[in-house]
Amino acid sequence: MVSKQILEDIDNSSAIRAMFIEGKALAKKVGEENVYDFSLGNPCTPVPKAYTQAMLDIIRTEDSLSLHGYMDNTGYPQVRKAVADSLNRRFSTNFDTGNIIMTVGAAGAINVILKVLFDPGDELMVFAPYFTEYRNYCGNWRGVLSVVEPDYETFLPDFEDMERKMSPKTKAVIINNPVNPSGVVYSEETIQRIAGILEQKQQEYGHEIYIISDEPYRELVYDGKTTPFLTNYYKNTFVTYSFSKSLSIPGERIGYMVVPSEMADFDTVFQGLAIANRITGFINAPALMQKAVARCLEEKTDVAFYDRNRKRIYEELTRLGFSCVKPEGTFYMFMKSPEADEKKFVDAAKRHHIMLVNGTTFACPGYVRLAYCVPYDMIERSLPAFEALAKEYGL
Amino acid sequence: MVSKQILEDIDNSSAIRAMFIEGKALAKKVGEENVYDFSLGNPCTPVPKAYTQAMLDIIRTEDSLSLHGYMDNTGYPQVRKAVADSLNRRFSTNFDTGNIIMTVGAAGAINVILKVLFDPGDELMVFAPYFTEYRNYCGNWRGVLSVVEPDYETFLPDFEDMERKMSPKTKAVIINNPVNPSGVVYSEETIQRIAGILEQKQQEYGHEIYIISDEPYRELVYDGKTTPFLTNYYKNTFVTYSFSKSLSIPGERIGYMVVPSEMADFDTVFQGLAIANRITGFINAPALMQKAVARCLEEKTDVAFYDRNRKRIYEELTRLGFSCVKPEGTFYMFMKSPEADEKKFVDAAKRHHIMLVNGTTFACPGYVRLAYCVPYDMIERSLPAFEALAKEYGL
Repeated sequence: MVSKQILEDIDNSSAIRAMFIEGKALAKKVGEENVYDFSLGNPCTPVPKAYTQAMLDIIRTEDSLSLHGYMDNTGYPQVRKAVADSLNRRFSTNFDTGNIIMTVGAAGAINVILKVLFDPGDELMVFAPYFTEYRNYCGNWRGVLSVVEPDYETFLPDFEDMERKMSPKTKAVIINNPVNPSGVVYSEETIQRIAGILEQKQQEYGHEIYIISDEPYRELVYDGKTTPFLTNYYKNTFVTYSFSKSLSIPGERIGYMVVPSEMADFDTVFQGLAIANRITGFINAPALMQKAVARCLEEKTDVAFYDRNRKRIYEELTRLGFSCVKPEGTFYMFMKSPEADEKKFVDAAKRHHIMLVNGTTFACPGYVRLAYCVPYDMIERSLPAFEALAKEYGL
Repeated sequence: MVSKQILEDIDNSSAIRAMFIEGKALAKKVGEENVYDFSLGNPCTPVPKAYTQAMLDIIRTEDSLSLHGYMDNTGYPQVRKAVADSLNRRFSTNFDTGNIIMTVGAAGAINVILKVLFDPGDELMVFAPYFTEYRNYCGNWRGVLSVVEPDYETFLPDFEDMERKMSPKTKAVIINNPVNPSGVVYSEETIQRIAGILEQKQQEYGHEIYIISDEPYRELVYDGKTTPFLTNYYKNTFVTYSFSKSLSIPGERIGYMVVPSEMADFDTVFQGLAIANRITGFINAPALMQKAVARCLEEKTDVAFYDRNRKRIYEELTRLGFSCVKPEGTFYMFMKSPEADEKKFVDAAKRHHIMLVNGTTFACPGYVRLAYCVPYDMIERSLPAFEALAKEYGL
């Protein structure tokens, strides 16, 4: 008696979560220290002390009834102002309170945006390999996903394929920069190329096409790279952000979206978003967490920790003969499967107690994802297992 | 370029919120003490000290990385177990961890359930007057709302109308007990009558019909009344609950749902709910708040405070000649408009600085709702304004 859609959703249920659960079960059998779980993007750098202190200070000093009470569905004005100011300082933008909506994480923000934009049958474009949940978010609002192939040399979008797959039904394009799962960072040139195609198609079709720039990994970039801030390149851009990675608090579901004033029909869109945030059931971003993150907007996670992991795993696996996409951001590495059916490779790795996620999950068969947001010593301990795996494949 | 549905949603946007915002604007003009805002169901009894202490203790003693990290999408197992145990103690039920999912409030829970149950065109039955957001939640999942008329003597459902409006498309029925906005409490007899009709219709149609028992006001009952716990009367029942009212923390978005093991297709339904909680964008109920409420499950709000307000406003307005539905639960009172078009009456009240919500919002024209979750002295101060209003209508 359940819906047809949820039956499909159950069938396609996240391979990531499944692998994480299998890893936990395996750990019970063979001991935690003998399982090398690279499945889940769960941050492992410490929660900044400033965040813990902010919560304690707020709880101790503010009136509890108003602290935990309803506020405007878009969030506390002073929190939204603080977010706007912080973005302006960092990205030379010109946002104010009225451009920010506090949200239940980036996942909440994307669903609210899709609810506002999508009629059934409208198309959402994503670039493979893409974060698998985008397909589900699109399905919630009866949209149709349109998947652009990557250039398999650079793992940037195949721009010709992008132009081919644009249609008058294309309502929005999700850019996830830095990219989960490939670890690639889109340069300014790449962003300009995408924006150029969209500008041209907007003219051709005579209607707006929106970018949703999903940036939970914004600060997780290496080797001095930077991620362009999308509203500076394309005016019909929503930015979605989560504090899950920067503050290591994914369980708290706190993030925000940015809606630039230059956007077409700004007033209607913003009003729609405020209402959609309520009627989707989110109501508002959790109250205490709004106030706590507002005091930690310039806090940074320990990027050096992930960088050390990144270098070690990339160098060692490359040395063992695996073909890896060099990660420039996020805490993920994409690796070519030594056999065409990467699901078999994932199974082989599992026999060595290495938990990976198959690339089919990200619409990129033939590859696997490693999440290296793990203790450094787990990487060290995993290397003999990877060596045995490489030998098994004659690398 | 926004969706057709959100344009409708903007048009129908909550009169409750609108009135609340108007009240704030009016307060700026004439002074806060001269506005009598009965529009919003914002709890005003103190947050229990135990809750504040629980947060502080948890933040101080638990490892911050695991405290704020991902957990299973259904919530922390120990929290779910504590909720099950508490329900079992209070309602002679027999729940375990596997029957509870922690949710982003009751609003989140209802949306997750509807996503799991509803194909486009399926019908959701509600009893007028009903909480206006049910229509929006139903629309999110492309369901069709079917509204049952009240018996205008008792403000219980008109059971004949209910039977008439059942159809093979009826997938679920929402029961909100105690009722927002009427303040009525359904007795065991009423629940048995509804359950009886549904049992018969299940047989007739040859498929399940689910009850969603939405109980954010469960503890807010007066004069020794109690609310029957629905899973004890009808096995295909989901219970949704929010801590917003019992702990006065509506801004924190924390609640749960109960899924009894006796439900048809339990395993599929439960798996669907766990996945839906993730892919709707909620992911999981906020982590710290899960742990904090688990320590306050038997905490009660100050019912006596609301009871004092209830008695005063019911007695005074009745004395002035207004016709009121005697509230037995919640912190709302439903009152008959002295003129047929209650929107005009709401405007007249506004001229006396009294903010009410029109009954059309709750599919019950000709009535208005008063939220008496306000400081007692505001009620006292409002009485001369009500008296002038009564005079204006020749009562």
